[in-house]
Amino acid sequence: MTFKEVLYSRRAVNFFDPDKDVPDLLLNKMIEMAAQAPSGFNIQPWSLIVLKEQADKLRLQQHAWNQQKVSDAPITLIVLADTEASKPGNPFLEKNFREMVNSGAMAEEQREWFDGVCESLYGASEARKVAFACKNTGFFAMSLMLAAKSLGLDTHPMDGFDIDAVREEFEIPANYWIPLLISVGYFKSDQTLTPPKWRKTIDEIIVRFD
Amino acid sequence: MTFKEVLYSRRAVNFFDPDKDVPDLLLNKMIEMAAQAPSGFNIQPWSLIVLKEQADKLRLQQHAWNQQKVSDAPITLIVLADTEASKPGNPFLEKNFREMVNSGAMAEEQREWFDGVCESLYGASEARKVAFACKNTGFFAMSLMLAAKSLGLDTHPMDGFDIDAVREEFEIPANYWIPLLISVGYFKSDQTLTPPKWRKTIDEIIVRFD
Repeated sequence: MTFKEVLYSRRAVNFFDPDKDVPDLLLNKMIEMAAQAPSGFNIQPWSLIVLKEQADKLRLQQHAWNQQKVSDAPITLIVLADTEASKPGNPFLEKNFREMVNSGAMAEEQREWFDGVCESLYGASEARKVAFACKNTGFFAMSLMLAAKSLGLDTHPMDGFDIDAVREEFEIPANYWIPLLISVGYFKSDQTLTPPKWRKTIDEIIVRFD
Repeated sequence: MTFKEVLYSRRAVNFFDPDKDVPDLLLNKMIEMAAQAPSGFNIQPWSLIVLKEQADKLRLQQHAWNQQKVSDAPITLIVLADTEASKPGNPFLEKNFREMVNSGAMAEEQREWFDGVCESLYGASEARKVAFACKNTGFFAMSLMLAAKSLGLDTHPMDGFDIDAVREEFEIPANYWIPLLISVGYFKSDQTLTPPKWRKTIDEIIVRFD
């Protein structure tokens, strides 16, 4: 599929065929493609809890406004964003620092400077931590939805859930924000998609205040 | 270009050719494509300040670690995320409510319920406001970078800037978070791209805590 076809045919699909499974190979391909998303200092603060078992999906559904698609879809993902990912000691941050030193992009002596930058840009306040985690995980989640479409899969991103209840149910540590859930599968062919919703025009998107 | 080609050839390009301009038609096409991104209740909390004038780009560059690409690129975007987008009275929220009523997806009497949901999901705390704005704007920004690549353009997302100074310089109202800057243009052909950075493996992305 061309990029344009994928972009314009991706829709939030409300009804999934519960009888059409997503093979692991396809799920892995989708995640591997989405993992190409960029992130600040390549920290990649995203993780996924992959729910395939019906019992697990129902545990999630009860905290997600009882939305039927959570359990109808063969796979529902809990998308996680690590708000502490820029903190020294995080294994992916450390790996990135090592890689930058090895490639000559940064010198060993710049460690203190690097930690200071991460702290001031990403860790200096609760809002900055959440912004860093959610923005980058937004890149990843968008890539997931488009990658899914390119592989013939449909998705539905969801905000309608109780973040504290989901955290407790799946014992998700406090450092993770839960930006969204994504159901993944195949559109149920006896349903009809509503027409695409309106989008802001270029004139509505471009602003200037000075 | 196929989706896969776009996804794997998108790179954060450090050097832009200052002599190669981006026609307005292409810029508009890129924004129009990115605007297809999904968002919670279709609120689309994203906006762009588009800087093309050299003087404007230099005003930004001084607050962005003096990164040369900010002014070398023919266009640098200040990406904005409205943290108050889910508040009753926001014109795009109001437009969405009207559209939902008109399409039969929601009844006029559900207004109070709708406002309550928006408040509890997106507005109940500073962290929730920032998360909502930045996650959705992350969807939009990722789509922008991929759309650019599909149109033959290169981009560079940047976190290295002083958010307060940029806000003051361009008189950006307090309700907008500034998640990132994106330079847009053409890679300078006498430079060499470093190899792509490592990415988390599937086993590093998938987690489980219960």
